[in-house]
Amino acid sequence: MRYDVVGLGIASLDLIGVTEEQPLFGAKQSLTGWHEMGGGPVATALATLARMGARVAMTGAVGNDGYGQRILADLQTVGIDTQAMHVRPGTSHVSFVLAEPGRDRRTVWWHNDPTVLEQVPLEHELIRSARALLIDTHMPQVALHAARTMQATGGLVMIDAERVREHTLELLPLCNLIVVSAEFARQATGVVEPWEAARVLHSRYEEQLVIVTCGAEGSWCANKGELFHTPAFEIEPLDTTGAGDVFHGALLYALLRDDPIRLAIRFASAAAALSCQGLGGRGNLPTVSEVEALLEPA
Amino acid sequence: MRYDVVGLGIASLDLIGVTEEQPLFGAKQSLTGWHEMGGGPVATALATLARMGARVAMTGAVGNDGYGQRILADLQTVGIDTQAMHVRPGTSHVSFVLAEPGRDRRTVWWHNDPTVLEQVPLEHELIRSARALLIDTHMPQVALHAARTMQATGGLVMIDAERVREHTLELLPLCNLIVVSAEFARQATGVVEPWEAARVLHSRYEEQLVIVTCGAEGSWCANKGELFHTPAFEIEPLDTTGAGDVFHGALLYALLRDDPIRLAIRFASAAAALSCQGLGGRGNLPTVSEVEALLEPA
Repeated sequence: MRYDVVGLGIASLDLIGVTEEQPLFGAKQSLTGWHEMGGGPVATALATLARMGARVAMTGAVGNDGYGQRILADLQTVGIDTQAMHVRPGTSHVSFVLAEPGRDRRTVWWHNDPTVLEQVPLEHELIRSARALLIDTHMPQVALHAARTMQATGGLVMIDAERVREHTLELLPLCNLIVVSAEFARQATGVVEPWEAARVLHSRYEEQLVIVTCGAEGSWCANKGELFHTPAFEIEPLDTTGAGDVFHGALLYALLRDDPIRLAIRFASAAAALSCQGLGGRGNLPTVSEVEALLEPA
Repeated sequence: MRYDVVGLGIASLDLIGVTEEQPLFGAKQSLTGWHEMGGGPVATALATLARMGARVAMTGAVGNDGYGQRILADLQTVGIDTQAMHVRPGTSHVSFVLAEPGRDRRTVWWHNDPTVLEQVPLEHELIRSARALLIDTHMPQVALHAARTMQATGGLVMIDAERVREHTLELLPLCNLIVVSAEFARQATGVVEPWEAARVLHSRYEEQLVIVTCGAEGSWCANKGELFHTPAFEIEPLDTTGAGDVFHGALLYALLRDDPIRLAIRFASAAAALSCQGLGGRGNLPTVSEVEALLEPA
């Protein structure tokens, strides 16, 4: 196999402003830090995989603006093959993230041009050359085709879903690994309790592993008729941006090296915790040995 | 004279996010627009003057990062001579502006590296080659020297002051035109009512013209022992960012072509109103004929 994981989704640029004061609307306030960093759920999961030594490629599109060039350069810097990334007319996906380290609160205002992501050509050969496919919910039509191609190849398909969008629910039956936020699980099932939502989703798609992530509350996994909870690692978070994306990347890494599922989730959980000690989604992507040090302190 | 106006102050890059929804902290919200625009009080005032046909130059500094290059390119695009702008190690002045057109509210989070503005060499010849000098409060030491040089030359010195900072009050006696926000007037005098604050400031610096700007409430001018109010033009504002800076630029334009003071303030007020119909400080810089059309409808 040429790649361990191919990702299909949005790659964005996050502008992260750090404030020490209580932010107020209608005011003019100074920031103590300003950072520019690549973002996007799939892109950050791939960056995590690359950091751990996996061979990864991304397909998707950026706009033909200055942001697009910076997004591509950033993907390459973190070790993601971008040959299947397209540059299309329009503006790229950008976000301003207001990070409040002391309060562990973040606010995100994002903007994109949806036409940039329309009719992105699918590279079937690229999908077939990988052991796993990671998709998000931003390009559902292409993701459907990609998931079918990967399913036919016999590889793993993992979805990272934050919100239920158009066609999102059509994607779920094609995924082996449904790893979603508590908010998504609630929207998709109508059930409020994450553990129950995990069970409902699993009962719908019996062959699939379902994980509902709940931030500092850990995660619930429903797999082969079994339901279990994995606590989050206790850390002093600097910024939880992207922790879920790092969880996805690390989980896929662990599963591809054949970790048993409970161990794989603990591995992902430790990686996500470590990522919260840096700013933004990629400010502290951990290596495998850093994750293992947290899992088994010397 | 080589230039009509030389400006000394900060030039920044504003990233403007436009939201139609009620913004919330701790949430992830989409923006309906994202714009990049040069900003900074002096820079926007100079851009206004250039738009009206004045010959303008700016002196100050930007950081040696990508933002600095974009700031300089933007100044040049709007017609400002940047030969006296310095590029220094550090990060440039950047802001994220959250604009809420329906509610006419804006929130600004800004970041800069103060060392970039330290020890910027002063170009005395440049100052002497202009009819007027416009300063802000961000580089008080250099501004003091520049104002003294201009005073010796016999040209006009105008200050754009938003807040009382270190050494700001030392600058005031050197300025012929003290045009400040109501907030600044309150801080500098301890007096809450803008009209009274204008009178107090004028009594302190008797030779100077004092204008206290109050947004939609118009402005108060104290000049030669006289106090008068000029109402703002009634407009449906899209974004009031930079309206005060446009006021400064247009006022200087009108005074340099020898408009009587009351007419000059009406001219500035009309220009500021028109600028509120575009996004950001420079989204709708009016031409002289556009301002005159508002002043004297056909």
